[in-house]
Amino acid sequence: MNRLAQQAASGGLPFDYAQVRARSLELIRGLSAEDCQLQSMADASPLKWHLAHTTWFFETFVLAALPQPPKVIDPSYTVLFNSYYVGIGERHLRAERGLLSRPTLEEVLSYRKQIDQQLQQVLADTPQDSALASLVTLGLQHEQQHQELMLTDLKHHFSCNPLQPAWRAAAPEQACAAGIAQASAYRAIPGGLCEIGAYDDGFSYDNEGPRHRVWLEPFLLGERNVSNGDFIAFIADGGYQRPELWLSDGWEWVSQRQAQAPLYWQQDADQHWLAFTLAGLQPLNRDAPVCHINLYEADAYARWAGARLPTEAEWEHAARAEPNLAGLFGEVWQWTNSAYLPYPGYQPAAGAVGEYNGKFMINQMVLRGSSCATPAGHSRPSYRNFFPPAAQWQFSGLRLARNL
Amino acid sequence: MNRLAQQAASGGLPFDYAQVRARSLELIRGLSAEDCQLQSMADASPLKWHLAHTTWFFETFVLAALPQPPKVIDPSYTVLFNSYYVGIGERHLRAERGLLSRPTLEEVLSYRKQIDQQLQQVLADTPQDSALASLVTLGLQHEQQHQELMLTDLKHHFSCNPLQPAWRAAAPEQACAAGIAQASAYRAIPGGLCEIGAYDDGFSYDNEGPRHRVWLEPFLLGERNVSNGDFIAFIADGGYQRPELWLSDGWEWVSQRQAQAPLYWQQDADQHWLAFTLAGLQPLNRDAPVCHINLYEADAYARWAGARLPTEAEWEHAARAEPNLAGLFGEVWQWTNSAYLPYPGYQPAAGAVGEYNGKFMINQMVLRGSSCATPAGHSRPSYRNFFPPAAQWQFSGLRLARNL
Amino acid sequence: MNRLAQQAASGGLPFDYAQVRARSLELIRGLSAEDCQLQSMADASPLKWHLAHTTWFFETFVLAALPQPPKVIDPSYTVLFNSYYVGIGERHLRAERGLLSRPTLEEVLSYRKQIDQQLQQVLADTPQDSALASLVTLGLQHEQQHQELMLTDLKHHFSCNPLQPAWRAAAPEQACAAGIAQASAYRAIPGGLCEIGAYDDGFSYDNEGPRHRVWLEPFLLGERNVSNGDFIAFIADGGYQRPELWLSDGWEWVSQRQAQAPLYWQQDADQHWLAFTLAGLQPLNRDAPVCHINLYEADAYARWAGARLPTEAEWEHAARAEPNLAGLFGEVWQWTNSAYLPYPGYQPAAGAVGEYNGKFMINQMVLRGSSCATPAGHSRPSYRNFFPPAAQWQFSGLRLARNL
Amino acid sequence: MNRLAQQAASGGLPFDYAQVRARSLELIRGLSAEDCQLQSMADASPLKWHLAHTTWFFETFVLAALPQPPKVIDPSYTVLFNSYYVGIGERHLRAERGLLSRPTLEEVLSYRKQIDQQLQQVLADTPQDSALASLVTLGLQHEQQHQELMLTDLKHHFSCNPLQPAWRAAAPEQACAAGIAQASAYRAIPGGLCEIGAYDDGFSYDNEGPRHRVWLEPFLLGERNVSNGDFIAFIADGGYQRPELWLSDGWEWVSQRQAQAPLYWQQDADQHWLAFTLAGLQPLNRDAPVCHINLYEADAYARWAGARLPTEAEWEHAARAEPNLAGLFGEVWQWTNSAYLPYPGYQPAAGAVGEYNGKFMINQMVLRGSSCATPAGHSRPSYRNFFPPAAQWQFSGLRLARNL
Repeated sequence: MNRLAQQAASGGLPFDYAQVRARSLELIRGLSAEDCQLQSMADASPLKWHLAHTTWFFETFVLAALPQPPKVIDPSYTVLFNSYYVGIGERHLRAERGLLSRPTLEEVLSYRKQIDQQLQQVLADTPQDSALASLVTLGLQHEQQHQELMLTDLKHHFSCNPLQPAWRAAAPEQACAAGIAQASAYRAIPGGLCEIGAYDDGFSYDNEGPRHRVWLEPFLLGERNVSNGDFIAFIADGGYQRPELWLSDGWEWVSQRQAQAPLYWQQDADQHWLAFTLAGLQPLNRDAPVCHINLYEADAYARWAGARLPTEAEWEHAARAEPNLAGLFGEVWQWTNSAYLPYPGYQPAAGAVGEYNGKFMINQMVLRGSSCATPAGHSRPSYRNFFPPAAQWQFSGLRLARNL
Repeated sequence: MNRLAQQAASGGLPFDYAQVRARSLELIRGLSAEDCQLQSMADASPLKWHLAHTTWFFETFVLAALPQPPKVIDPSYTVLFNSYYVGIGERHLRAERGLLSRPTLEEVLSYRKQIDQQLQQVLADTPQDSALASLVTLGLQHEQQHQELMLTDLKHHFSCNPLQPAWRAAAPEQACAAGIAQASAYRAIPGGLCEIGAYDDGFSYDNEGPRHRVWLEPFLLGERNVSNGDFIAFIADGGYQRPELWLSDGWEWVSQRQAQAPLYWQQDADQHWLAFTLAGLQPLNRDAPVCHINLYEADAYARWAGARLPTEAEWEHAARAEPNLAGLFGEVWQWTNSAYLPYPGYQPAAGAVGEYNGKFMINQMVLRGSSCATPAGHSRPSYRNFFPPAAQWQFSGLRLARNL
Repeated sequence: MNRLAQQAASGGLPFDYAQVRARSLELIRGLSAEDCQLQSMADASPLKWHLAHTTWFFETFVLAALPQPPKVIDPSYTVLFNSYYVGIGERHLRAERGLLSRPTLEEVLSYRKQIDQQLQQVLADTPQDSALASLVTLGLQHEQQHQELMLTDLKHHFSCNPLQPAWRAAAPEQACAAGIAQASAYRAIPGGLCEIGAYDDGFSYDNEGPRHRVWLEPFLLGERNVSNGDFIAFIADGGYQRPELWLSDGWEWVSQRQAQAPLYWQQDADQHWLAFTLAGLQPLNRDAPVCHINLYEADAYARWAGARLPTEAEWEHAARAEPNLAGLFGEVWQWTNSAYLPYPGYQPAAGAVGEYNGKFMINQMVLRGSSCATPAGHSRPSYRNFFPPAAQWQFSGLRLARNL
Repeated sequence: MNRLAQQAASGGLPFDYAQVRARSLELIRGLSAEDCQLQSMADASPLKWHLAHTTWFFETFVLAALPQPPKVIDPSYTVLFNSYYVGIGERHLRAERGLLSRPTLEEVLSYRKQIDQQLQQVLADTPQDSALASLVTLGLQHEQQHQELMLTDLKHHFSCNPLQPAWRAAAPEQACAAGIAQASAYRAIPGGLCEIGAYDDGFSYDNEGPRHRVWLEPFLLGERNVSNGDFIAFIADGGYQRPELWLSDGWEWVSQRQAQAPLYWQQDADQHWLAFTLAGLQPLNRDAPVCHINLYEADAYARWAGARLPTEAEWEHAARAEPNLAGLFGEVWQWTNSAYLPYPGYQPAAGAVGEYNGKFMINQMVLRGSSCATPAGHSRPSYRNFFPPAAQWQFSGLRLARNL
């Protein structure tokens, strides 16, 4: 993020503000105010909250930081739509976001409109302000991140309704396939003293830097993501009943949940696999990448396949060396066997905005790539996504690796 | 309920169907679809669910029982809006009622309209059918019961929003006062071989009968309900810090919750008491009856006051003997020290409708009277309300009793 | 208890102090210090704790109340061995009693010996002190109550060891049989205005009085307790799979525990029923009374059998009217459908000793009679035992009742 | 471990079998059978269990693997004393180890004696069997690991007894001090392409290899461990009240536990710090290294001090480069900011013995060095200890690092 100044100085925003903001609204087209208020678990927020929170981000970190900040739209929003920025003060309980019938969706949409007007005025007034451009860019990246979460969370909310409602007839999941490569096809990646991390020539989050050297042994990386068909073979081979395939905490997770398949999968009376999607309940596509598995499931599958998960350094190095590997981006986030920890020399940004990433660097594992739900322009080789190892509700899958 | 046949035979419904049903809609006037979807805890249902469930009751127990039942409006509603009737089949999880954005409020209102039309047609076609009248009457009493719950539950839902929204400017809580009698004023009630339970000359739930004999010693009953002012004295005297005043389970409840006052009470910066009401946050009225206390708090207060709670037989006997005792009805439900158990000779009705009351006869205590939120015409001396001893969110207070 | 003075005044203790105390030691004969420290759940205390706590009771309520009390043996015991007497001060956490390796069993036995010497000296010095006799009698009754709990708790502790150890070759469970009467044999008991509660001519706990009038309708009471064979028929008929047989909370208990049989029952490879007993794992005796069932199981069985549980008033009235009914005492405690609540006019004793019973009068159901583990001389028609409806680890069974 | 063959082939065991085994018994000298049965939480096992489990390890992995294995001492021990080796079959529940009064301590000691005799006979019979020597060495290392756990666990067990018992008058904690270096004294460590991991010339666990290259930037490492005095300054500066110092999960841990100081610390009436030790409650030694802190506390302290935790590669590299740095070994385990994950090329050993380490490689952080409770001869630069970030009951502290 401290790299943003340079970039923005070179000539304004890399994104169209109005276009990014409009896409959030496009996502709720066809949904009711009731749909936008759903909260099915503490981890997943209501869509109305996402719409308000991303707006609050601009109001708090951009507008309120101006020399002559505009009047705060509604002081209560500061508490209600703060996600986790302790530096900003009191927050509303995460698990109770679904209890906010007030402000209404209509009021939140009006809040968005007012902030958009204020912000676009500021951008028009000070087109060369590179610090401003940095913060606005961060806000837009943040908005895009929440656009993916809106779909991820809505899918979970809807999955709890026995009516299994559909978001759209054409859902993002249907757009991707794991391709035709053999499950056993690997590409050899040379090792040595490599560099990973974001370059300074474009936007990146602070956690993607500093760019730094790592030593890698040569390795093999799967030519495509593991598919639903591959994963069915694992299940059929007793994958969920064999403790020797699982990490110890993973086996405990399996036992407690009596897990038998990825999240959202079910079998019909004829034992055919179906999956709940953003287009409702659908027959499972065996050629699509397996999705909604957690780290434990990914790791157990890899062990069963005589392989392993790549590290994040291996993944990033390969993504630059072999950018044509199928499904690196746009299919599923790919679990790595790297813990989410700071890179050597990492320094969080100063102030409340610095709470963005650093304080979450514990108890989470890194996912790389991007998914079918990731907005266009929000993918890059250095991007570090991260979730706890038990999380299933993200669009998360895996790609295998092996030692040479 | 088996008494209903006789009564209905004597000439139709004791209530106006359209009028009772309309009152449910009147309660949500001014609320948004988002408001009607709120569910703040498993015990409290969304208003939309109440509206649908009471309608489902008519569809399932009246219309579907006709010789030529109409087509079911939507088979999924049978699962979604069944509360606890195991005999009817699968149910949707109580704690997840707030996750039903579909059907929408609009669809539920349309469901109500269709069932109302069907039912009113049936009533018009068979005006002399006493079995039908019995079931419709039960359905209307059931609807009235849910009308009180709608207010009770909405109050809890709204209390979880930091904005503390108001339902109406004029709220039911404001309409009642505990009166002017001294806290220490008691009326002597003679004992002997008494009868309690519902007579057969009007509607009553099955749990109110059979009418039966009980032996009572003479006793004293408080002339009014305990007021907020009385309860403040208890708090000021360390009521919530003195274990000797509490039942053992009550003291554990106090300790775990760090309870210090009735639900919805808070103190402002000047230590003045405020209470969240259906009209929003309001200064506490010291003359109003104390409300939203559980059995433990009621019992501790009584012990502190050198008194005790009445039994339900004492309460009912007194309510018939001294019907002019202040606040028996329409202020707060009054905790008794009687467990909710079957009367001698009690038999639940046959079939699924018989699940109404009997199976809840454990782990609950009886409350008598009625509250400011009870619909007109839904109060009677034999009425047995019941909740677990820790429940606070009902409009529940207390009236003292003493031995002679 | 306030009746004790009269009784003791009439000539000393109804029990032999040394004999009652010696029986507690007899119960641990053959057990190791490790056995005596086991605590398998918060509800069940280590045997070492029982031995110390009953001694603490004499030290605290008898010796410390003397005009010239002896020096306290060890001040730390006051905290460690106080069960729940808030009036006495700080207590050690119930669930952590099993973490007290110090004091050792040897030290506890020495504590017993010292208190016994002090107490017997006092009794010898003041043979005519009726207040003293009252308190000592209470202490001995208390000790006897804990003697039953020692066996009850040890059975639970041992049941958690996969080795399924035996306490003795001849266990109390083996001594009783439900008799030969038909399951369907009932005795008619006349009703009317009856009296229940303890007479003043012998020891009783405060909760057994005051003796008072109740009105009873005539009813039928089963001639014997329900047997294991009877209960097997209930299980075979799908008793644990049919929600319509259960109270609502009972069905939730069944579902959460996936309960399928009484506590301690298991089936061998040939589907023969075995039960863990104080003599280890044994074939189930079909003629013995069913034991270790909770209120929910008792109530479901009764409903399945077309019967009901008696109330405690019915039970006590019948036990006096028909004392020869089989198995009233000495087999299993018999669940009643009465909540444990104060009798009319009940007043707890003054001071800390008054915490004995009154504050537990909520959320518990009454059991009547006595069990195979109850010490001789500790049974009487007015005795009120009480446990929460889900408790199974007591020696609890049932006897059926029906309306006439 | 696969390196063991070579080493053992070079001439027998690096440890004296009898001496290592005897030290386990020395640890329980002066303790009662009751002390040895305590289990204060699921993570901490009874000492009796440790004694039996380490013996079971020899019986199962050494004796039972012989061509002509001796008869199993007691088949039930196979279940009772298996810790987590799923490959070996059924296990007893970890949290219920404290419920095993049988076998008694005496029986466990006899079990040890029998296995020792069998094993020493085997060692005498086949002195040149390198595979045998490998397994026995692993068993002895395993025993030493449990010797540290015996002290760690006993400390926790005893801390739950209000009597605060002492294990010995002279406790291990008293033997070490953080030294006299300034808290701010750092040693510069050069970076570059380094190697870490165990060499093949002595015993190591499988998780310590393979030895492999890592790239390190030059850095500063604290000359001594952080002391109690240093940590008191952190507390005095509001360390436990300032969310900006904590990882997000760490702050949640602080809030839920209302943590205010390291485990076992308490303040007396004069606000002097005391600590519970294996010698009972003692005044806190400000010069001793801070101990019993978790990763969250270590990380927050480092942030407060303007420093950070070292990675495990940095620690190991420095420990070889600067072996005279104070307190690397024998004081406290030092938290690193490295997750416990496999080294490149890591392969678990085949068979059940391979469950030793690999399956725990998730949700844990690495600690390096060794503590005052670690047996002599059980420390080495490549040793990887690991615990979840919230664990406090180990002898864990920290050493600071900084970027150059």
